[in-house]
Amino acid sequence: MNAWGHNFRISIFGESHGRSLGILIDGCPAGIRLSEEDFNEDIDRRRPKVFGTTARKEEDKPSINSGVFNGFTTGAPILIEFQNNNIKSKDYQQFKDHPRPGHADWVAIKKFKGYNDYRGGGHFSGRLTLAIVAAGVIAKKILSTLEFSSKVVSVGGYIDYENILKKAIQTQDSLGGIVQCEVQGVPIGLGEPFFDAIESSIAHLAFSIPGIKGIEFGSGFEAANMKGSEFNDLIVNEKGETETNHSGGINGGISNGNTIVFRLAVRPTSSIAQTQSTFNLKTKKVEGLSIQGRHDACIALRVSVIAEAIAAIALSDAYLNSKNESIS
Amino acid sequence: MNAWGHNFRISIFGESHGRSLGILIDGCPAGIRLSEEDFNEDIDRRRPKVFGTTARKEEDKPSINSGVFNGFTTGAPILIEFQNNNIKSKDYQQFKDHPRPGHADWVAIKKFKGYNDYRGGGHFSGRLTLAIVAAGVIAKKILSTLEFSSKVVSVGGYIDYENILKKAIQTQDSLGGIVQCEVQGVPIGLGEPFFDAIESSIAHLAFSIPGIKGIEFGSGFEAANMKGSEFNDLIVNEKGETETNHSGGINGGISNGNTIVFRLAVRPTSSIAQTQSTFNLKTKKVEGLSIQGRHDACIALRVSVIAEAIAAIALSDAYLNSKNESIS
Amino acid sequence: MNAWGHNFRISIFGESHGRSLGILIDGCPAGIRLSEEDFNEDIDRRRPKVFGTTARKEEDKPSINSGVFNGFTTGAPILIEFQNNNIKSKDYQQFKDHPRPGHADWVAIKKFKGYNDYRGGGHFSGRLTLAIVAAGVIAKKILSTLEFSSKVVSVGGYIDYENILKKAIQTQDSLGGIVQCEVQGVPIGLGEPFFDAIESSIAHLAFSIPGIKGIEFGSGFEAANMKGSEFNDLIVNEKGETETNHSGGINGGISNGNTIVFRLAVRPTSSIAQTQSTFNLKTKKVEGLSIQGRHDACIALRVSVIAEAIAAIALSDAYLNSKNESIS
Amino acid sequence: MNAWGHNFRISIFGESHGRSLGILIDGCPAGIRLSEEDFNEDIDRRRPKVFGTTARKEEDKPSINSGVFNGFTTGAPILIEFQNNNIKSKDYQQFKDHPRPGHADWVAIKKFKGYNDYRGGGHFSGRLTLAIVAAGVIAKKILSTLEFSSKVVSVGGYIDYENILKKAIQTQDSLGGIVQCEVQGVPIGLGEPFFDAIESSIAHLAFSIPGIKGIEFGSGFEAANMKGSEFNDLIVNEKGETETNHSGGINGGISNGNTIVFRLAVRPTSSIAQTQSTFNLKTKKVEGLSIQGRHDACIALRVSVIAEAIAAIALSDAYLNSKNESIS
Repeated sequence: MNAWGHNFRISIFGESHGRSLGILIDGCPAGIRLSEEDFNEDIDRRRPKVFGTTARKEEDKPSINSGVFNGFTTGAPILIEFQNNNIKSKDYQQFKDHPRPGHADWVAIKKFKGYNDYRGGGHFSGRLTLAIVAAGVIAKKILSTLEFSSKVVSVGGYIDYENILKKAIQTQDSLGGIVQCEVQGVPIGLGEPFFDAIESSIAHLAFSIPGIKGIEFGSGFEAANMKGSEFNDLIVNEKGETETNHSGGINGGISNGNTIVFRLAVRPTSSIAQTQSTFNLKTKKVEGLSIQGRHDACIALRVSVIAEAIAAIALSDAYLNSKNESIS
Repeated sequence: MNAWGHNFRISIFGESHGRSLGILIDGCPAGIRLSEEDFNEDIDRRRPKVFGTTARKEEDKPSINSGVFNGFTTGAPILIEFQNNNIKSKDYQQFKDHPRPGHADWVAIKKFKGYNDYRGGGHFSGRLTLAIVAAGVIAKKILSTLEFSSKVVSVGGYIDYENILKKAIQTQDSLGGIVQCEVQGVPIGLGEPFFDAIESSIAHLAFSIPGIKGIEFGSGFEAANMKGSEFNDLIVNEKGETETNHSGGINGGISNGNTIVFRLAVRPTSSIAQTQSTFNLKTKKVEGLSIQGRHDACIALRVSVIAEAIAAIALSDAYLNSKNESIS
Repeated sequence: MNAWGHNFRISIFGESHGRSLGILIDGCPAGIRLSEEDFNEDIDRRRPKVFGTTARKEEDKPSINSGVFNGFTTGAPILIEFQNNNIKSKDYQQFKDHPRPGHADWVAIKKFKGYNDYRGGGHFSGRLTLAIVAAGVIAKKILSTLEFSSKVVSVGGYIDYENILKKAIQTQDSLGGIVQCEVQGVPIGLGEPFFDAIESSIAHLAFSIPGIKGIEFGSGFEAANMKGSEFNDLIVNEKGETETNHSGGINGGISNGNTIVFRLAVRPTSSIAQTQSTFNLKTKKVEGLSIQGRHDACIALRVSVIAEAIAAIALSDAYLNSKNESIS
Repeated sequence: MNAWGHNFRISIFGESHGRSLGILIDGCPAGIRLSEEDFNEDIDRRRPKVFGTTARKEEDKPSINSGVFNGFTTGAPILIEFQNNNIKSKDYQQFKDHPRPGHADWVAIKKFKGYNDYRGGGHFSGRLTLAIVAAGVIAKKILSTLEFSSKVVSVGGYIDYENILKKAIQTQDSLGGIVQCEVQGVPIGLGEPFFDAIESSIAHLAFSIPGIKGIEFGSGFEAANMKGSEFNDLIVNEKGETETNHSGGINGGISNGNTIVFRLAVRPTSSIAQTQSTFNLKTKKVEGLSIQGRHDACIALRVSVIAEAIAAIALSDAYLNSKNESIS
């Protein structure tokens, strides 16, 4: 299903080239100050303004259609909707028969028996992460004392990536990258053992972002190369602060009060103008395909704010759940 | 909550040193042949028999208490229960005040206000993965045409790890490792865009396994260093087979018919006999702690069959969901 | 939460006097022919056109904002939205302090700490049943071989109710009523034992309709006065047809192939112009209240099509679930 | 599915003549005092000890297998299990081919393709209400300040029912009845508009009890015969107390602080020794069937404590949800 969460529940909808896209949020407490302007900052951070991102410019103006009254959340479901305006659907009709490699075209045709909206990736489009960012803004308001930050760690394997990015654009190619997100000020005790572990929730949401191929917490894959005596984070005081943070702020699925740290591996953009030889379902032959359209050369550059959004969504849900922990 | 899944729904329960542990499975179709012997092979694969694993020997005998009649599943909920027998709880009472670094002791005390069962990690124990393996056995039966395999890729950073493992045991230390799982024969179309992506489901379950700090699909973190022209898997025929498999068998959250491949980063065992200096909640001082008990030197060695189990659980749920895709 | 369903999942949103209201439907199979005109018939049946219903006239024009492409459902979430136009919010400001008896005003103020949208009942408004009717239209399309029908059985205790209704209007009063719904052509086997019984699902949805105070299936409350030898429906042939239908087409929570029959008890409209003495939260005194606004004299007259909608929603969910019953 | 609840989540399992039956409870807060003796009172109230109830005597001894440590709930899932001992399964084998009228035999055979456990009704058995009673005991502990009471209102249409019950037993027949449940001390604000209305939750659970054919709140079906000026409950003071309680303590799906009142219509026991002519699936003829076994003449006599249990479960879930209502 296109929904996630127990107590802070988000349901995503829409298509890249349809009327609109957005998110329905259920379980947001009453009494949170919220206006349409509150979304500007994070939506702007997601915008393709930097070098190496798409030329499609959408207004990305959120409309709060329900759940807010006199400037405050009411406790009723909140519908955030974005109209689609700047659409060039004719770019996409060829992909109905000639599925783009790395894209969902092929699986969508098969799964939905050809009924899928193939324009701009339809419901599979990365454009829907705009809705996730909007939900993240509300989640951050629920967690007003926490601090979320994120950054691009590397692009195409380079920390200093300007040159490699230029070259990729010149050669009509694309690049992957790694994004790191941190959350400070997390209270002790969010999350559950097993299926509602904080890592489970964040990872679940992370892989909902198109293009994510890996996630790691704290030392992550490097932990697999370590000894216990190196890895274990020794507790140094009554607040549970630890000398190191190899666990990334989580033990047994539960926040331990230290900074939560995770990194996402973002694959290179699938759409490249360079010609690729791939199967054409109509001609039943392998044929060259050059994807024109308007695309990011490196989607990792736009993922930072989305990483914060999913962390905020996961932690909001855990925070609202946590109110039921003990009776005394 | 301690439950996962839409149509193949598992609910885990139990403690390491309580009466029993197990799993309740709801949504398993009727008509699947199932006996208690069917669990033997995978339970045996999880057993700590190899060099570098714990000395605690449990019978691990599954009891099917409901949902099976005359050797077949009935469509009613299936309760699989394991009694705990070989318990040495007194080993653990010190950790109530002196939380073990890397363990859930600290967060459990805080979250559950001291009511948590601290014996052997209680409900947080890795012993509960036995229940996940049991659910995996049933999931594999639902997906009888798929082939699951898994292996330890490296331990402590070494592909050939016997020496480093010996040394870790000698020095009362522990080691991390990487486990890879593959699933062949997956039909095209399992999974959903966004929150029920196959990667989301597998990752969600993966981080429910104690000790997992990272997961990657296909090329994973290496994809972040690649160009689109290198990464994209070109479709070569009508069946959707691809020249390469950098995507790990999944596009847009949906299985594309190629082999599903993922890797798990397993941190070193938290419990080590080597003395560690960590905070004592009672004395309010940093004090040395040597964890005796019976522990694996490398839990990665026991994770392979659990990795298969979570893949089978995730894919079973997606498979049962997939029956509703189109009306025609 | 404001959502219901496992496989056909509906999420309701909106307020009576806000921007819009509607419903998000997740899990609708791909390939169902659907246009905005398809909603006309059932929306028209819900309209307050008959004698004894409200003077508020809304266009009630559905907008399909997602999930439909080229005239067919795509398998992606379907957002149906209705704009609010004909709003007279100033009618309602007094109820912020002087809660209307029988209404949700009092509980909404208390539960949401005064942040609730009190205009026209806000999110509690019977106007949101418009969204339920819209979801019902789609559900009926999934169940294209079933026949849904419904009727007003009595108003104010009378089968022939024209006079009593006239009198109620003249005296600025309102009336309750009973509505009966039938579903023919239901396949054997929809529903589950215990918590997903067909009666549980229909009843759950029925009590979501503002004003419903009772539901009964088959002989219902009359069954409590019967003997087993009178009540039991004897099976007369291989198709499972029964001589009588005291069970209302359901045994053990599961459809038995006979007509599903249920009746709803609808309380009289809470809003009456006749003066009522009730507590004023501001003055802290019991004071007279005359509710002007525009209201139905008998909401039961508008419930028939809503009863069909909830039956269709419940049965669609059960139908989609039922695809997983057995493996062979 | 065989599960219900958001924050207080119950999952039922087991069969009448299988190894065991029980319930898994997830979301119960830590720190509630709980022992196996605590179940005695309510289990005893459900026991078939009164005149007109079954001769099958089961020990009904609950075993708490997880989630309780040192006499208190730990916050981890609680498994309550009951062994089946007094089983006479051979009584039931004939019903595999000759489905009992009014029972689930017919639908179970069809739905589960003959794989269902037909002994004693299998998973459909009223015996599983024992598990619901057990969950109710825990729910009542969460709601320790609320008072639950219930009573048999009528049997076979009579308030004074001893004679009619004797006669039914003599003639090998059975009788229906009506049960009323009240809950006092409910805080204002439990429940939600629409799908998590208190009435929706209680009704959902009520129809999970085998044999329930109707439910009504407050004035219920009688409300359908009333005028608004009669029905509306006028608020008399700041605490929200009302002059009358026609709404049964609930407005807009939310508790208003007054006593919650509901009534259940219980059909007569389906199993009667009197010969009934019904279809035999094997001989393909209508044939006489006399059900021997051990059965209640009137199951309504055993429903009272179950009615309290479902009210407690529904209200516990709403109570735990309610902690998230507002941020301030």
